[in-house]
Amino acid sequence: MEIPYKIYLEESELPKQWYNVRADMKNKPAPLLNPETHQPATLDELSAVFCRELARQEFNENDAYIDIPDEILSFYKMYRPAPLVRAYCLEKALATPAKIYYKFEGNNTSGSHKLNSAIAQAYYAKKQGLKGVTTETGAGQWGTALSMACAYFGLDCKVYMVKVSYEQKPFRREVMRTYGANVTPSPSDTTEVGRKILAEFPGTNGSLGCAISEAVETALHTEGYRYVLGSVLNQVLLHQSVIGLESMAACDKYGIKPDVIIGCAGGGSNLGGLISPFMGRKLRGEADYQFIAVEPKSCPSLTRGKYAYDFCDTGKVCPLQKMYTLGSGFMPSPNHAGGLRYHGMSGIVSQLYADGLMEARSVEQTAVFEAAQQFARIEGILPAPESSHAIRVAVDEALKCKETGEEKTILFGLTGTGYFDMVAYQKFNDGQMSDYIPTDAEIAKSLADLPQV
Amino acid sequence: MEIPYKIYLEESELPKQWYNVRADMKNKPAPLLNPETHQPATLDELSAVFCRELARQEFNENDAYIDIPDEILSFYKMYRPAPLVRAYCLEKALATPAKIYYKFEGNNTSGSHKLNSAIAQAYYAKKQGLKGVTTETGAGQWGTALSMACAYFGLDCKVYMVKVSYEQKPFRREVMRTYGANVTPSPSDTTEVGRKILAEFPGTNGSLGCAISEAVETALHTEGYRYVLGSVLNQVLLHQSVIGLESMAACDKYGIKPDVIIGCAGGGSNLGGLISPFMGRKLRGEADYQFIAVEPKSCPSLTRGKYAYDFCDTGKVCPLQKMYTLGSGFMPSPNHAGGLRYHGMSGIVSQLYADGLMEARSVEQTAVFEAAQQFARIEGILPAPESSHAIRVAVDEALKCKETGEEKTILFGLTGTGYFDMVAYQKFNDGQMSDYIPTDAEIAKSLADLPQV
Repeated sequence: MEIPYKIYLEESELPKQWYNVRADMKNKPAPLLNPETHQPATLDELSAVFCRELARQEFNENDAYIDIPDEILSFYKMYRPAPLVRAYCLEKALATPAKIYYKFEGNNTSGSHKLNSAIAQAYYAKKQGLKGVTTETGAGQWGTALSMACAYFGLDCKVYMVKVSYEQKPFRREVMRTYGANVTPSPSDTTEVGRKILAEFPGTNGSLGCAISEAVETALHTEGYRYVLGSVLNQVLLHQSVIGLESMAACDKYGIKPDVIIGCAGGGSNLGGLISPFMGRKLRGEADYQFIAVEPKSCPSLTRGKYAYDFCDTGKVCPLQKMYTLGSGFMPSPNHAGGLRYHGMSGIVSQLYADGLMEARSVEQTAVFEAAQQFARIEGILPAPESSHAIRVAVDEALKCKETGEEKTILFGLTGTGYFDMVAYQKFNDGQMSDYIPTDAEIAKSLADLPQV
Repeated sequence: MEIPYKIYLEESELPKQWYNVRADMKNKPAPLLNPETHQPATLDELSAVFCRELARQEFNENDAYIDIPDEILSFYKMYRPAPLVRAYCLEKALATPAKIYYKFEGNNTSGSHKLNSAIAQAYYAKKQGLKGVTTETGAGQWGTALSMACAYFGLDCKVYMVKVSYEQKPFRREVMRTYGANVTPSPSDTTEVGRKILAEFPGTNGSLGCAISEAVETALHTEGYRYVLGSVLNQVLLHQSVIGLESMAACDKYGIKPDVIIGCAGGGSNLGGLISPFMGRKLRGEADYQFIAVEPKSCPSLTRGKYAYDFCDTGKVCPLQKMYTLGSGFMPSPNHAGGLRYHGMSGIVSQLYADGLMEARSVEQTAVFEAAQQFARIEGILPAPESSHAIRVAVDEALKCKETGEEKTILFGLTGTGYFDMVAYQKFNDGQMSDYIPTDAEIAKSLADLPQV
């Protein structure tokens, strides 16, 4: 069958349930721990921070499929299905025998896949009768997505934006404001934890870890608010499974059998969402795939971190999670892929990686932007720096096929567009972009601070 | 039949020919005139400025359908079909009995419909063996589109960008550079006409008219280069007919019969492209539609201009065209809808308007941004300011239906996204946006300078 350039599922073919990969995992992700008692966190404890239904989803490791509420399905229809694209032009330009596909999640105003979970979390917050939510944002994609979702349901939205991104992406702030959100650069003096971090590290560029602490503190101290998070959590990977489910449906419809599935990995939301249903097949012994997580060399949690319980945030107010981590005190360099500047990794992805079910690679920023520019010129989409990590490895794999003559089928997640990343592109265009790789001593130092569990 | 939120045609249903509305017009657009002799321009004269095949298309008023070359069809498949979207959420929010559809052309990196003609013009330039092309850009969408098209075919691309947009949209420049283009703010000192305009109007914000003159001058004085234009010309409306053809195919497939068809109008490329095939049916007596062109009150060529021969550019080097014009010396205020800051209007659209086959309305900028914000929050797409002119009138029409109870079907063109227009959105968010309406005396003054033909 001839494969079209872009596969759009029919509305009737869209997933009506999310897939929960934990149901098929033999080794489940370790439970979250109360940061003070080091005992497994309870539903009531989590519900003080998160919406109750989302806390339930966080604990649910048995139901393989969870119905997507109608209100969310309606919203999904405004920007989904995301196309599964055959990269015919890229294949030709690389002269590779490999077949390259990408699932493109950038065709919405948030510019990324983040909207898939934002709308779900806003829905459950509204259903619980909350006034609003607080959150953090790195690259600004999650904050934009949540602003859009909150505008849709009439919720207030308070966003703490990692300072380096806030400064590099002033227009992101305006998009969020256009959707009615309040945006504060983090660390800020609006929270206790922010003031503490500012005192300890004056001039810090901020990190997702700091911003999370500030958003959690604000939610805990504001009546009618809860905290929502755009990555890392089990619930987020559950919502993001819509990416993988659509991809799998499109592949099955056209008889496409991916050999390699590649995603960029920051907190793990896009990667986990993309691979989950395929991983389910692998776990159930129905098919086999090579999965590759791609992270920046400047923030290499899977490839150089430790699998251990750690704080999810710099301020140490969140539950402890067992994950690959560089230590909650790790301060990544001002790498431009703001969405990948997180010290830890989703518990689900961490467990799958620990069990040898997937691989991980780290790549340098300049090599990533070379791939980004090449991709933009050939495939016509200007990719986000985060997404370009996956492009880099997809291109590398396709070039390997060129050497070996293998006709592998490569599928990667193109999570978003780079329209708000032009400061980074400008640095690259001007030859001013540098790489940064943390030393062993730096990583050892931040890992020395892991909690004793 | 239930109408999906988004209608995507199958690849096999995409148009393989452009539609040339001139073939069905009883009164053809008046011929272009040589600016010195005032005699009809010849193919050879036009071919000194434009690629030869494009000059031929400019003259072709008899062939209703023109084959789209395979290379262009392949490129179209990378970002087309554009979806025809049913605005269910907007209808609900407005509580209108009207049915609202929009053809969304923003899902590509140029951010607009401009790519439809850019790729065609770059193709013909490449086929003619040229080294490169020159052009102007207002909002930056056309320049971005042409940069993408030139990168695809390996052509050099020199862009003169209207100064006010160059300053308000620094990131647009970086997108163009990422695609390998050279970008110069206009008026500039790189051309004779630019130096003359700078001397006469120091501190000018620039206009499309100036930028066109500079680009034409550069093309005429550089071996192996031709000039390309993103709007106004017959050839551009021909290429843009792909918008209308896809829209009509989608409407026909689902039994949708638009009563009102609305498009924003700067030079007329999107409007002409969207309405052409529908206008063809009207001209052939097969159906009837109400067509509405929407222009900014700050640059009201259809609603306050004169239908007369005029220069297409401020420097008076281009052929004369009969069109609705405010005079080639008209300097629009720094309105943020950069793409609508042109003193004239497409010859085809002008003739259709003169013949009473369509209507025109002008709207104020603040009212446009109110509609833009409302649309962004409800439909989830952050629209370009240009496109938001059409949204404004579509919403107005839907609200009229609410009063009268009429169940009209409204179709409008959503030409692009506003991701690079956040300076304008910021002004609106801060309550700092103002309106500007030229006085009768201002318009009379620039009209006094019309050529005597």
